[in-house]
Amino acid sequence: MALSCPGSPLHTLRSGLAGRPVGLVGLGLIGGSIGLDLKDRGVPTVALAHRARTAERARQRGLADVVSTDPAVLGEAGLVVLCLPLDRLLVPTPQLLSALPRQALISDVGSVKGPVLAAWQAAWSGRFIGGHPMAGTTAAGVDAGRAGLFQGRPWALTMTETAASADLQLLEALISVLGARVIHCTAQDHDHAVALVSHLPVLVSAALLHAMAREQNQSIRHLAESLASSGFADTTRVGGGNPRLGTLMASHNRQALGQALGHYRESLDTLEGLVREERWDQLCAALQQTQALRQQIVGP
Amino acid sequence: MALSCPGSPLHTLRSGLAGRPVGLVGLGLIGGSIGLDLKDRGVPTVALAHRARTAERARQRGLADVVSTDPAVLGEAGLVVLCLPLDRLLVPTPQLLSALPRQALISDVGSVKGPVLAAWQAAWSGRFIGGHPMAGTTAAGVDAGRAGLFQGRPWALTMTETAASADLQLLEALISVLGARVIHCTAQDHDHAVALVSHLPVLVSAALLHAMAREQNQSIRHLAESLASSGFADTTRVGGGNPRLGTLMASHNRQALGQALGHYRESLDTLEGLVREERWDQLCAALQQTQALRQQIVGP
Repeated sequence: MALSCPGSPLHTLRSGLAGRPVGLVGLGLIGGSIGLDLKDRGVPTVALAHRARTAERARQRGLADVVSTDPAVLGEAGLVVLCLPLDRLLVPTPQLLSALPRQALISDVGSVKGPVLAAWQAAWSGRFIGGHPMAGTTAAGVDAGRAGLFQGRPWALTMTETAASADLQLLEALISVLGARVIHCTAQDHDHAVALVSHLPVLVSAALLHAMAREQNQSIRHLAESLASSGFADTTRVGGGNPRLGTLMASHNRQALGQALGHYRESLDTLEGLVREERWDQLCAALQQTQALRQQIVGP
Repeated sequence: MALSCPGSPLHTLRSGLAGRPVGLVGLGLIGGSIGLDLKDRGVPTVALAHRARTAERARQRGLADVVSTDPAVLGEAGLVVLCLPLDRLLVPTPQLLSALPRQALISDVGSVKGPVLAAWQAAWSGRFIGGHPMAGTTAAGVDAGRAGLFQGRPWALTMTETAASADLQLLEALISVLGARVIHCTAQDHDHAVALVSHLPVLVSAALLHAMAREQNQSIRHLAESLASSGFADTTRVGGGNPRLGTLMASHNRQALGQALGHYRESLDTLEGLVREERWDQLCAALQQTQALRQQIVGP
């Protein structure tokens, strides 16, 4: 068992769990990565898998101490993290609800928070605090999880008036143990913010791929495909991601995404106008702004 | 001296040079990287640097066998590659023109080809074949060059009716020795194609940064900045790049960029319409298309 000094996140997590394991529902990229990191820190874990084959592979990979397709595996958990696709979080099934132990604090990792919170407030009478780790999502499935995925990454926790401070501390400790940075916000603010930094980029990036496909001159289109290099690969990465996830995010965050698209259209109109009117000094000034903005947000 | 088997690109390059060195004008990212790779392959190089300080640092880094600020350094070169910023390629100065040896084949690495070709056809009576390596451009300056930069990357060569086949072979051999893939095209087709894969992405990506800055609610804007993760970083990379380079590319490829922006606007309109009208099946189908398109163009 790893050392945990009093006051450290690991110590707080262990104290809060009082000997109970962390439960994981789903062992894809997020669930598997949480499992690997907790194992490394000596925090006991139990995991519920949907399919026998997934459970078998998860055992081979050591994603949790105990992996089962039997909901009873979660029975002793003190904290359960629902690491499921967004659509399964939005419609909690009776099977899932009856598998969750009453004493446990429940959290999730869904990329839209308002609708998930509403669904769980309606369906679940126990303690629930929504979360969202901002970690890469291109890999999927039981082989996707990897140690250190959350290191240095933001992890949003959505604040509600009813959340107990001891529950918040427990989740904060878990997130810190995983190496992520806790960001507190309301579900509504979260959904507006991710519309800008996560959902809008998917459409902006997808439109770039479609724009190339719209080129009528086949030889130019083929030439463009041959010349595409790292810049094009980076700009189109999220637009070439999981179509189902992209659609779920758009459909469950439609209003905020619509506002973000409005901001985007104004910005593109401005830049296009500068090109059309050959106002090169102003275009250069605009690109200096974006260079500074990106350095401020993302770093060099 | 490295081995060069008959028929290999290195052998073709050496035969074509007939003992003369390759000349480099400019030792930034591209020039420095070419120099390091040619040194590694045992191909002699001479380089003209603009400033004494640059020349000194280039000598320390071993970017060419001989580095000087004296134009006479190029006197013996059989092939000279102009590795200069686009604006300096577009307006060849009398000093540069008089530094180039009459016997040498001249090439360049400018990211727009039509205007460069026109400028050199007007100013230079010797042999000139335009080129464009599609390699990363975030680093700049005499410390930016690195070995292997062109490995596996496309390198466009613009075809003209007057180019001699021996000259094309010499340049193709150089590009192959550097590990890049030769792509033949006309200057006009090149400029249309890079508008789609290189110049349009800069504006699309810059507009995403501006869209975030347009968010009026400060707390949401700050939250968005905190939650920005790898997807946002990738999508905004080229929009946060060198403002001067972005402006030069736009201003010297304005017409093709305007067409590409037209394609982009139609694509974004379509996606936005699907979101507004909540046609989720069609959005998912559109994102399946972009996922397949990207895999076809960029790979998995």
